[in-house]
Amino acid sequence: MPEILDALRSTLPAPRLVTDPDVIASYAHDEAEWAPHGTPAALVRAGSTEDVRAVVAACAEHRVPIVPRGAGTGLSGGANALDGCVLLSLEAMNEIVEIDAAERLAVVQPGVVNDALRLAAAEHGLWYPPDPASSPWSTIGGNVATNAGGLCCVKYGVTRDYVLAMEAVVGRGEVVRLGRRTAKGVAGYDLCGLMVGSEGTLGVITEVTVRLRGARAPEHTVVGYFDALREAGEAVSRVTAAGIVPSALELVDRHCLAAVDAWRNMGLSADANVLLLGRTDLPGEAGEAEADAMVALFEEAGATWSARSSDEAEAEALFAARRLAYPALERLGPLLTEDVCVPRALVPEMLTRIEAAASDTGTHIANIAHAGDGNLHPLIIAPAGDDDARVRAQRAFDRIVSDAIDLGGTVTGEHGVGLLKRRGLHAELEPAVIAMHHAVKDALDPAGVFNPGKVFGTP
Amino acid sequence: MPEILDALRSTLPAPRLVTDPDVIASYAHDEAEWAPHGTPAALVRAGSTEDVRAVVAACAEHRVPIVPRGAGTGLSGGANALDGCVLLSLEAMNEIVEIDAAERLAVVQPGVVNDALRLAAAEHGLWYPPDPASSPWSTIGGNVATNAGGLCCVKYGVTRDYVLAMEAVVGRGEVVRLGRRTAKGVAGYDLCGLMVGSEGTLGVITEVTVRLRGARAPEHTVVGYFDALREAGEAVSRVTAAGIVPSALELVDRHCLAAVDAWRNMGLSADANVLLLGRTDLPGEAGEAEADAMVALFEEAGATWSARSSDEAEAEALFAARRLAYPALERLGPLLTEDVCVPRALVPEMLTRIEAAASDTGTHIANIAHAGDGNLHPLIIAPAGDDDARVRAQRAFDRIVSDAIDLGGTVTGEHGVGLLKRRGLHAELEPAVIAMHHAVKDALDPAGVFNPGKVFGTP
Repeated sequence: MPEILDALRSTLPAPRLVTDPDVIASYAHDEAEWAPHGTPAALVRAGSTEDVRAVVAACAEHRVPIVPRGAGTGLSGGANALDGCVLLSLEAMNEIVEIDAAERLAVVQPGVVNDALRLAAAEHGLWYPPDPASSPWSTIGGNVATNAGGLCCVKYGVTRDYVLAMEAVVGRGEVVRLGRRTAKGVAGYDLCGLMVGSEGTLGVITEVTVRLRGARAPEHTVVGYFDALREAGEAVSRVTAAGIVPSALELVDRHCLAAVDAWRNMGLSADANVLLLGRTDLPGEAGEAEADAMVALFEEAGATWSARSSDEAEAEALFAARRLAYPALERLGPLLTEDVCVPRALVPEMLTRIEAAASDTGTHIANIAHAGDGNLHPLIIAPAGDDDARVRAQRAFDRIVSDAIDLGGTVTGEHGVGLLKRRGLHAELEPAVIAMHHAVKDALDPAGVFNPGKVFGTP
Repeated sequence: MPEILDALRSTLPAPRLVTDPDVIASYAHDEAEWAPHGTPAALVRAGSTEDVRAVVAACAEHRVPIVPRGAGTGLSGGANALDGCVLLSLEAMNEIVEIDAAERLAVVQPGVVNDALRLAAAEHGLWYPPDPASSPWSTIGGNVATNAGGLCCVKYGVTRDYVLAMEAVVGRGEVVRLGRRTAKGVAGYDLCGLMVGSEGTLGVITEVTVRLRGARAPEHTVVGYFDALREAGEAVSRVTAAGIVPSALELVDRHCLAAVDAWRNMGLSADANVLLLGRTDLPGEAGEAEADAMVALFEEAGATWSARSSDEAEAEALFAARRLAYPALERLGPLLTEDVCVPRALVPEMLTRIEAAASDTGTHIANIAHAGDGNLHPLIIAPAGDDDARVRAQRAFDRIVSDAIDLGGTVTGEHGVGLLKRRGLHAELEPAVIAMHHAVKDALDPAGVFNPGKVFGTP
């Protein structure tokens, strides 16, 4: 351990290396409160690609694990410290290097916050779509490392769909450029795409080139109240089956709204157990027609009340509540967060199974969901210090994972595997596919230093 | 060599194994007439995943190269036979297994022809966008192996954007499922995406699950006549800079139109050196406005004539001519096909450089281009048997590749590297990135049997 500190001291500018245990401790984990974390040897706040290169080279030489991190808003423990590791924070590399309006792309350092990129693009009449609920805090580097999703993915795709190229430090400290700036390109393997979603296990991303879209038409919002999760799920199925691709289709239950209200006093208390929020960004009459169609489908599915929102401020407040649901619930106790994703037609069935898991295990489960994607986030709440509740929560978690796989779904739609879903990943993927993961990992990380043990564990 | 034949005979149904040299010869190369090919030991016409598994297992045991192929319409030599190899044709696996309209996906065997999938999807009101000009003949397996592009990619992306999952035979004969059926999913590395565009070097694709979109509004077509390539390129730049994303933006020069006319007598002879064909599929008035805007931009860029096509049959004929340009020119002599892709704003500059390369090397170069993508296909024509013309053609080819890289472009936008662009790939990618390719290849193909030497060569 002292060896790596000496090595880092000899190559890094002094302010970049942090050894104060209190500071380090505050960087030692992400927001997955249930995931374990170790004690790092040091924290490096990288300021440049050269800093990252120096850290990787030193760690490869001394065989010390590197755990890269952005803002630490992850929900799976992917950025949690390993004992004796070097925590490598990319937060300080937060420059928007270039926005090329003609080519519709942006080049950014990994520490740029998601919303900051969106704002900068908007100044050029452009739009960066991926919008995880953490967008005011999470960084593009972390978004790319986890292939983050978000609210508008139902229509516009996920982070991977927007990453054109990157600079990364790989292997034993090689700085490489992967991908391209052109609209198309097939020269060699899609190593850039492979890095996206690899959760820091294949290298450290030091610059990202993303595709931008033109700004879109203002959205119309549709709100539906439902008595039961299953009915809201049925509405989602009907919207999908009707061939509608909404620009958002979000589910929020009463527990989430109440928690947000208790925290921010937004006056949200709805006369409903479940809220469905649909949006369309089709321009002109097409948008009006799509919004009306969603209202009708919500009603057919059993909504107790449904309407187009006439007040955009109110609509914005509902979406803000959706985005704040996670931190609001976190105030009630450590959350065990699911991120299952099932085929869209099976959303009602999966929601029913989640309710059964809650009732059979005696756990309290709040629900938010990117329902239009089939991506559900049951949030299992266990009061701090209640060991029995913890055991029951874990049981509910495992059962929901197993139900999702059962329905042809996945254990993680957008949060990543990290530590929390490693077991689920092994249930989901065949041993031969796990073996391919180990082969790729060993091939591209010969020193075994990049976030070892995360995602699929060690053989 | 006889050993592998004995091994295949002992496991494959007899009609699957072909050893007749005349038949084998007709499968020994794709349409890249300039790429060399060897003499295969055998041809297997696989009828099932089990056939493919048996071939891979036998070849891995006997260390015999496998060259997988679909319809053989490739333009880079990727499917060309290696001496002593087993050619593995997937053509006979041509079943559309499933179209799930609610989930908007299709499951197909690799031998399904691109247009056949599009037709089948249309019966459900759905659309499979990737549309290489070879779509009446090329197969989905080949499209996936090369990450094929096409005309509508400028708005709707390439094959990779539509591949959700696949079954593949990898390693020493393991049958694996990669990817997922859900709208989102981040459980592990994107090995499915890695297989897309890997040109048969990482395994053999035996089933593909693709995403479908809803059918779209009828297109409006805009035609522009230009005196010079550079002016047409300028029109492309202006369309892009105006924030228009056309559903197609194709360039065809007089040489191509004349060749198609001479072959199919379509009455196309235009009073122009260069034709630009733009399309929009925005619904209703938005589409009319976008078409009008393109007409105006074509004129600003110097079009001698530009108008919205009032006759959809005529517009269709122009696009058909675009698609037939390659086979029509092939009749004039062996074509050396470029596939460079440059940043969109540099299309005029690249077209100018292509003209300079033609004139400086004394070669005849016809041009078709997915101009809206910056993806240009200069077609270098050398009369058969003229050795001096061949040398000059190769010189023009190398110069265009080098100019494209110079402009921040790529040597291949959509055709793949195969054999023809291996040198270009090495000029484009850094040695450290080439090393990553070899590491991944060695990790996932431990027996070294999958299309060895293609794309990036041997170390």
